[in-house]
Amino acid sequence: MNGLKIFLLFCVSVGALTAAETLTQKALNQRLEPIPADIQVLLSYISDKNDPISDEKIELGKKLYFDPRLSKSGIISCNTCHNLALGGVDGVETSIGHGWTMNPNHLNAPSVYNSVFNKVQLWDGRSSHLEVQAQSPIQSDAEMAASSELVVARIVSIPEYVADFKKAYGKDTKITFEKIASAIGVFERTLVTPSPYDDFLNGDEKALNKKQKEGFEVFLEKGCTKCHYGIALGGTMQQFQVAAKYKFIELGDFRGDKYGMVKTPTLRNIAETAPYFHNGQIWSLQDAVKEMASIQLGIKISDKEAKQIMDFMHSLTGRKPVLTYPILPPSTAKTPKPDMN
Amino acid sequence: MNGLKIFLLFCVSVGALTAAETLTQKALNQRLEPIPADIQVLLSYISDKNDPISDEKIELGKKLYFDPRLSKSGIISCNTCHNLALGGVDGVETSIGHGWTMNPNHLNAPSVYNSVFNKVQLWDGRSSHLEVQAQSPIQSDAEMAASSELVVARIVSIPEYVADFKKAYGKDTKITFEKIASAIGVFERTLVTPSPYDDFLNGDEKALNKKQKEGFEVFLEKGCTKCHYGIALGGTMQQFQVAAKYKFIELGDFRGDKYGMVKTPTLRNIAETAPYFHNGQIWSLQDAVKEMASIQLGIKISDKEAKQIMDFMHSLTGRKPVLTYPILPPSTAKTPKPDMN
Repeated sequence: MNGLKIFLLFCVSVGALTAAETLTQKALNQRLEPIPADIQVLLSYISDKNDPISDEKIELGKKLYFDPRLSKSGIISCNTCHNLALGGVDGVETSIGHGWTMNPNHLNAPSVYNSVFNKVQLWDGRSSHLEVQAQSPIQSDAEMAASSELVVARIVSIPEYVADFKKAYGKDTKITFEKIASAIGVFERTLVTPSPYDDFLNGDEKALNKKQKEGFEVFLEKGCTKCHYGIALGGTMQQFQVAAKYKFIELGDFRGDKYGMVKTPTLRNIAETAPYFHNGQIWSLQDAVKEMASIQLGIKISDKEAKQIMDFMHSLTGRKPVLTYPILPPSTAKTPKPDMN
Repeated sequence: MNGLKIFLLFCVSVGALTAAETLTQKALNQRLEPIPADIQVLLSYISDKNDPISDEKIELGKKLYFDPRLSKSGIISCNTCHNLALGGVDGVETSIGHGWTMNPNHLNAPSVYNSVFNKVQLWDGRSSHLEVQAQSPIQSDAEMAASSELVVARIVSIPEYVADFKKAYGKDTKITFEKIASAIGVFERTLVTPSPYDDFLNGDEKALNKKQKEGFEVFLEKGCTKCHYGIALGGTMQQFQVAAKYKFIELGDFRGDKYGMVKTPTLRNIAETAPYFHNGQIWSLQDAVKEMASIQLGIKISDKEAKQIMDFMHSLTGRKPVLTYPILPPSTAKTPKPDMN
């Protein structure tokens, strides 16, 4: 009797393990990787050895990330378009910047969450480093529209910021535009959102429900991981319109880099970050899945299959870092004034 | 010897008490009041008995306060112009709303911090209640530009918000525009910032330094409390341009209500909330003090006196509530889309 019990137990365990291993193994074989559960391993992934993470840099970077005085007008912050309350995006088709200017390339704001896991940043992948990426929207006329000189002048005019930079980077540090963007980058590196999907790949078989596991199988079978792989499930440059043409909205629409390559967006928190695609033209996740399969893989995905994949995608909605809303140091008489023009 | 010690101690205590009492008594005689130190007393001040404060309402109100989907465009929240990171204001002369529209009356955004202590809300005082005030900017074409129907449609399309309303207001509650604004009002009631000034009036003689006490004396002597009284040090309707004319910027500039009355701004956190006056035309606190004395009291205040008053005003910079930045529930397929036009 005892022997049978042990035998059954053994069977069940092996059976369960095998099924789980199969799905996990398939995922790993297709270059998927979880966010490491071990904090030390995670830190080694998100750290830049040339600019080590510290509490002081994170706190400073958070302040700067939320500070609208980094824009020419004084009313647009990094968080305006990459809103940490809204999955790290603005939830509109095309981001709106200084002077209510629509992005001239019809670009949709990608999520800042987990952007540390992208191999490249920006839709055309021209920046590989978050610390460099952060410089771009601040200076873009259609975004924050500030010159690097203006940003530096604003920050050095505020004694608390000067003290924060000394604490974070040493007392002889010169506050440059690059240093400001760098602190923002360090903060952004910490914005990772582990999800049930990661728990599953890290060994917790119950982290995904039956439907999510089925959806995961479909996701893997259909070949979505050809582009959506790695920890980010995206974040690398891929040829766009491999199998069929995409309906661009107009001539000004972004066509990728000079080779027609586009940065694959992460699928993490995808259920929270509509609208989709680089130009935000697709609001329904189901439509987005079907359209991508058609353009990139040259396959037709049924409504049922798309829904299964969506079930899986909901397991990518992650646990967000708990952030205290910063209290920013006040401007002084020396702080350059906002400029709305 | 012991007798002498006791005598001296007695003298010193009485002397100190008398000096403190004198300044505090003067302040109270001029209708100044501290934020109550006793939490139960404070609660009785900030609560509305028709809509009692609860944790569920505060949490819901906080989410709504930070949610840009309450605006037509989906990118402007209450916090855009009343930024809790920046003293509860936007730090620009005239607030910018939907379509980069400047407020047509050149109005500067007043701080939301301590607004619960105002007797009236809005520059023309047309709203006495925070729960009513909150409706105004959401609907104003030059601010958030949303119709009440749009706001309700957005909120009821998001199941988590529906659940939050049930938790806060009971399971049979109908989500109306008024209810949405009401939850925001409840959150705003909690945004109070006790300061060294309050500690002083509540009996901590050391809360103000020597310069701040001297400045406080000048503030009281000059008659600033004719308008800036009560817990808010402002927040009531007062005749504007009592003694001299104010230089308005242009015809469209706000002139007060139909009697030429204007809501006196609070002086709390004034060192953090430049630019000043209803049209934000004065950036220097010193200039603001001198100009107000001239227009309203018909007196000339010297630079030295203005600086002394400013020393006092710094004691009005309060301790801000520590807020966790909310994670907002995602939109659904039923959520009305952002409209940038």
